[in-house]
Amino acid sequence: MSDTLWIVVALGLGVASIGVALLKFAWVMRQPAGDTSSQRVARHIRRSATQFLGYLYLSLAGVAAGMGVLLAVLLGFDLPLLFGEGVVSYDVTAGIGTAITFIVGALFAGVAGYMGMAVAVNANVRTATAARDGLTPSFRIAFNGGSVMGLGMIGIAIVGISAIYLLTENASLVLGFSFGASALALLAKAGGGIYTKIADISADLVGKVEFGIAEDDARNPGSIADNVGDNVGDIAGMGADIYDSYVASVVAAMLLGVALVTRGFDDRYIVFPLMVSAAGILASIIGSQLVRVREGGDPGRALNLGTIFTCLLFAGFVAVVVFGGGFTFGVYIPAVAGVLIGLLIGYTTNFFTSDLYAPVRAVAKYSKSGSAINIITGFSYGLLSVVPSVVGIVVAMLVAYFGAEAYEIDGIYGVAIAAVGMLSITGMIVSADAYGPIADNAKGIAEMSDLGEETIANADALDSAGNTAAAVAKGFAIGAAALTVLSLFHAYGEEIRAAGGQLTITIRDPLVLSGLFLGAITPPLFSAITMLAVTRNAYTMIGEIRRQFNEKPGVLEGTETPDYERCVRIASRDALKALIVPALISVVLPLLVGFILGPSALGGFLGGSIFTGVIFALFMANGGGLWDNAKKWIEAGNLGGKGSDEHKASVVGDTVGDPFKDTAGPSLNTLITVMSLVSSVFAPLIAVMHVF
Amino acid sequence: MSDTLWIVVALGLGVASIGVALLKFAWVMRQPAGDTSSQRVARHIRRSATQFLGYLYLSLAGVAAGMGVLLAVLLGFDLPLLFGEGVVSYDVTAGIGTAITFIVGALFAGVAGYMGMAVAVNANVRTATAARDGLTPSFRIAFNGGSVMGLGMIGIAIVGISAIYLLTENASLVLGFSFGASALALLAKAGGGIYTKIADISADLVGKVEFGIAEDDARNPGSIADNVGDNVGDIAGMGADIYDSYVASVVAAMLLGVALVTRGFDDRYIVFPLMVSAAGILASIIGSQLVRVREGGDPGRALNLGTIFTCLLFAGFVAVVVFGGGFTFGVYIPAVAGVLIGLLIGYTTNFFTSDLYAPVRAVAKYSKSGSAINIITGFSYGLLSVVPSVVGIVVAMLVAYFGAEAYEIDGIYGVAIAAVGMLSITGMIVSADAYGPIADNAKGIAEMSDLGEETIANADALDSAGNTAAAVAKGFAIGAAALTVLSLFHAYGEEIRAAGGQLTITIRDPLVLSGLFLGAITPPLFSAITMLAVTRNAYTMIGEIRRQFNEKPGVLEGTETPDYERCVRIASRDALKALIVPALISVVLPLLVGFILGPSALGGFLGGSIFTGVIFALFMANGGGLWDNAKKWIEAGNLGGKGSDEHKASVVGDTVGDPFKDTAGPSLNTLITVMSLVSSVFAPLIAVMHVF
Repeated sequence: MSDTLWIVVALGLGVASIGVALLKFAWVMRQPAGDTSSQRVARHIRRSATQFLGYLYLSLAGVAAGMGVLLAVLLGFDLPLLFGEGVVSYDVTAGIGTAITFIVGALFAGVAGYMGMAVAVNANVRTATAARDGLTPSFRIAFNGGSVMGLGMIGIAIVGISAIYLLTENASLVLGFSFGASALALLAKAGGGIYTKIADISADLVGKVEFGIAEDDARNPGSIADNVGDNVGDIAGMGADIYDSYVASVVAAMLLGVALVTRGFDDRYIVFPLMVSAAGILASIIGSQLVRVREGGDPGRALNLGTIFTCLLFAGFVAVVVFGGGFTFGVYIPAVAGVLIGLLIGYTTNFFTSDLYAPVRAVAKYSKSGSAINIITGFSYGLLSVVPSVVGIVVAMLVAYFGAEAYEIDGIYGVAIAAVGMLSITGMIVSADAYGPIADNAKGIAEMSDLGEETIANADALDSAGNTAAAVAKGFAIGAAALTVLSLFHAYGEEIRAAGGQLTITIRDPLVLSGLFLGAITPPLFSAITMLAVTRNAYTMIGEIRRQFNEKPGVLEGTETPDYERCVRIASRDALKALIVPALISVVLPLLVGFILGPSALGGFLGGSIFTGVIFALFMANGGGLWDNAKKWIEAGNLGGKGSDEHKASVVGDTVGDPFKDTAGPSLNTLITVMSLVSSVFAPLIAVMHVF
Repeated sequence: MSDTLWIVVALGLGVASIGVALLKFAWVMRQPAGDTSSQRVARHIRRSATQFLGYLYLSLAGVAAGMGVLLAVLLGFDLPLLFGEGVVSYDVTAGIGTAITFIVGALFAGVAGYMGMAVAVNANVRTATAARDGLTPSFRIAFNGGSVMGLGMIGIAIVGISAIYLLTENASLVLGFSFGASALALLAKAGGGIYTKIADISADLVGKVEFGIAEDDARNPGSIADNVGDNVGDIAGMGADIYDSYVASVVAAMLLGVALVTRGFDDRYIVFPLMVSAAGILASIIGSQLVRVREGGDPGRALNLGTIFTCLLFAGFVAVVVFGGGFTFGVYIPAVAGVLIGLLIGYTTNFFTSDLYAPVRAVAKYSKSGSAINIITGFSYGLLSVVPSVVGIVVAMLVAYFGAEAYEIDGIYGVAIAAVGMLSITGMIVSADAYGPIADNAKGIAEMSDLGEETIANADALDSAGNTAAAVAKGFAIGAAALTVLSLFHAYGEEIRAAGGQLTITIRDPLVLSGLFLGAITPPLFSAITMLAVTRNAYTMIGEIRRQFNEKPGVLEGTETPDYERCVRIASRDALKALIVPALISVVLPLLVGFILGPSALGGFLGGSIFTGVIFALFMANGGGLWDNAKKWIEAGNLGGKGSDEHKASVVGDTVGDPFKDTAGPSLNTLITVMSLVSSVFAPLIAVMHVF
């Protein structure tokens, strides 16, 4: 087959994936939407979530347009006043082309996130309603809701990449698409993450701790904001996040494929990454059809089996592509190693966050000595959990590199393909992951609209299963982001060399070392800023919730409707304002390092940001999950259950973990991706313009 | 002057420094030792501290002897069965010589730590007693006690290094001395750190929180163990820690001096680092004489002025050495840049940990929303505090590097000299730092033996001033450790090359990248293991304290003496057992990486460990200090003072910060130093023996 045909096949599978997603969306919408009370709660959530996302996207549209103009002007036009006459070689096509693909990339990422949220805010109430009839129907709705997001977004990603490459035949332009996707993802993830935790922490601290009412009690003025947060943070944000890693992995591999081709390899190595993704799409579509749970069954087990089955299917489909297509075995090894080690990392993550194993149990047990000990122990296990995942990433990298080299394929191309392989089953992973917040929301709606104990129990069973899926997904996402960023790192090197610059990134060079140090502090800096935004603004919102309870006694008695709107507005406004500094960090810092300390220092900067970025991302995701599940395990009746000293201590641990796992942690892999992409896109300028 | 004469001058100043320390020791011992009650408490502390240190040193002696034999055999003898015939070139002198200097190094470090503790456990009660007469006399005893440690240990270090170099004229053998010092420091610091926090957390949680008795109340069975902890952890451990950085910085600079000489420079560049240290010793002796505080004055200000004055003296003395000795200006820049940027890092640290500035105030204020918010905020500011220090390290490195290069001195030699410069005033820094725990202990004794309110108030004023000094010292220690390890990193490269190995540490090599990743997770892993040792064992000790309170009602009523001994034994035994894994990590991990993945990967490993080691060390030290001072600020009557909700929340934050700042954090710079030294010492073997 010619490579055009291969691209068309990938494009076709992308369209098919979107089609299946839309069919599932329609199916979800046809399910019963519940009684008046549930619908009222759901409507509140839906309206507020849509409103926040509207504000967010509007701001982002402004950013995207501005960034697009900047890209077009800086990369596309001769600016002798700025750079001096004839120093930089300009390319109008590259400038305007990158600007357009950037905007398209951001737009597509926005659509992917929006779609996920649109189905989630409808699936939640339907899941809650179906929970009255049992586990099987409600699980089906929640999982199909998740699949809309999973299948829809990989479809959108592949359609975007294939279409741009088909139209332009220029792999560098696809870089703009990826940059757009990551820029949007970073803001959506960080913004949503800040929003959701302002709301969650405030609602919990005042409602549960001070006034002793249940989580998700409708009397709590912050409850709607809290549920909105689950949607904008966990679904729209998380979706955009994995989406951007997915796009970046394919794009980085394509760029490195170009380098292979210049060394005499077959053209098709440029589109091979798309073909691996196509195999993953097919595997995900089939795998997600087969996830079922019977009454009294274990939803978590169903999700796991689905994931493993999808991996096996993928390994088979890739074999067909590699051997049918006449590719070397040297690209099969990385693709399969990627997905297998992804699974391994995912399940190691599960060891540290599931209440079946020692870490969660230990944290729960030590809670007897108070919240401080709970926190120190959880913190330590969180750090410990980084070790196996990083070892997994190292093994994946070495297997992929030397596996490819053994067949005379450039090793780094192998690493890039391992990243694509690890993310290939994203459709299935995200389906299982997006299922979680839908189930969580369903539980909230069931409680807020008093659907009865059995319904709440069913919704609770669904909710618990979401944690493992989320842990696995996070393991995958961070592992793959690490490999992707490693390949982007090399893509950056290729771009610098293509522009005539030099790049010798040896650690013994003081400029490279400076870059490494500065890069290494960027993820902690980013984490600090986003988390401080949460505590600062939670402080404001806690005041507002307290005010409503104190000034309007009817609210607590349930005779007066609280002013939900006001809490939603506070969270929205503060989250958007808090995004400005993180956004600047991600774009301005790498450019400053590049223009001042030079391209090698920027190489070091990217390297440094990868190491701490991966470590902090894993630590925060796992630590947060661990604290959360230690609390849930106690609440399930262990060690004295709800109300015991252990429980009180574990609630503090859970609250500390909240911004770790939902605000700072999940933004970090996107942060390092954005910084790598910014560097690659501006490489032509940096190569020739720098102080040192 | 010939270089032998210079060494003799350095040796002489070292001896003088030890002499001044002994005079001060004798002076402290001549001060009144207080009434029977105080003496009884002090005797308990002294006996238990000496006992723990005895156990610790006995275990360490075993480790040192074993390690010495291993070094002698591996480096000194032909082992064809192990390595294959004729693969490695052996050198009996290097083997046995390194073994001997290793043991001497460990021994000297032990003496330095022991001396500090010996004076501290006598100065504490004398400080408490003198506090009855006012601030001036009690400050003088506490500070002179600290000076014994500060001046004594730099004297011991310089005597050791000078003597070995004078006798052998072989800079590589001094490496063994440094390795011995760091190995002992790591175990003393980690062991003491685990001990002190097991005792502190347990005593506080049961005594203060559960039974509502004061901190340091003699009825608390854990109170003696707690005060012992201050001595073994903060003094003996901390002393050994800065001691080892001090030795390593001089040794690394001497080794790089050898490289300079082989390129045709004057021999004296090998001993120049000793001369810089000698200038620092003289400055510290003079500076420490001038620290005084008048009645009603601010002890913190006196300590700061002393430090700044010592820096200025040092700049002057080094100018004499450089210009008088005919050295190039290119080595003056790094020496002075080092000490100035050390000050800068120290005072930035102070910004984040002093209750005069926004971070501590913010953490205190947000405590209103509960302990979780206190912790998230403190955690975030802790991360933020890393940024200026790391920027400072980068600036110091660049100034030193390019400053030296501008005068045609190898840039990395400049970096090494900057580290020596930064640590040159260690005598003064440690005097101020060791003052802290003496004052803290004095306060404890004053409370436990009811010396009256005014005395306690004076002791309290002394204690508060200790925090700034400790923050500045930690900033210095970590900043200098970073620069030292960077020079050791290059020294390692020289050793590999000298052994005929190749070293190309480019980040684009997958083996180097693997090393970087694995190195980067080592400090978090080490932190996790030491902190888990604290919570696991605190859990046991909490049980014991509770048992005593519950089984013997007389203890709480004050009619029965609690079984202090039993608590001391638990903490000692558990701390020693908990050392095994961290010790293995520090020695075995780098060797595994070197022998399996090769010398370049080991280079990456060291690099990776530096980045996260520095970040975690700073974050943990500053975060812990910040939480502690937020609590103290509230206790001083702000935001409702003791007993308020803010106070309760801040106590939890303080407890979380305890193992950060006293267990894991301070061991990390020693960890990275040990790993660098292990790598350099074993470089001749690793250069020729590796799998990849």
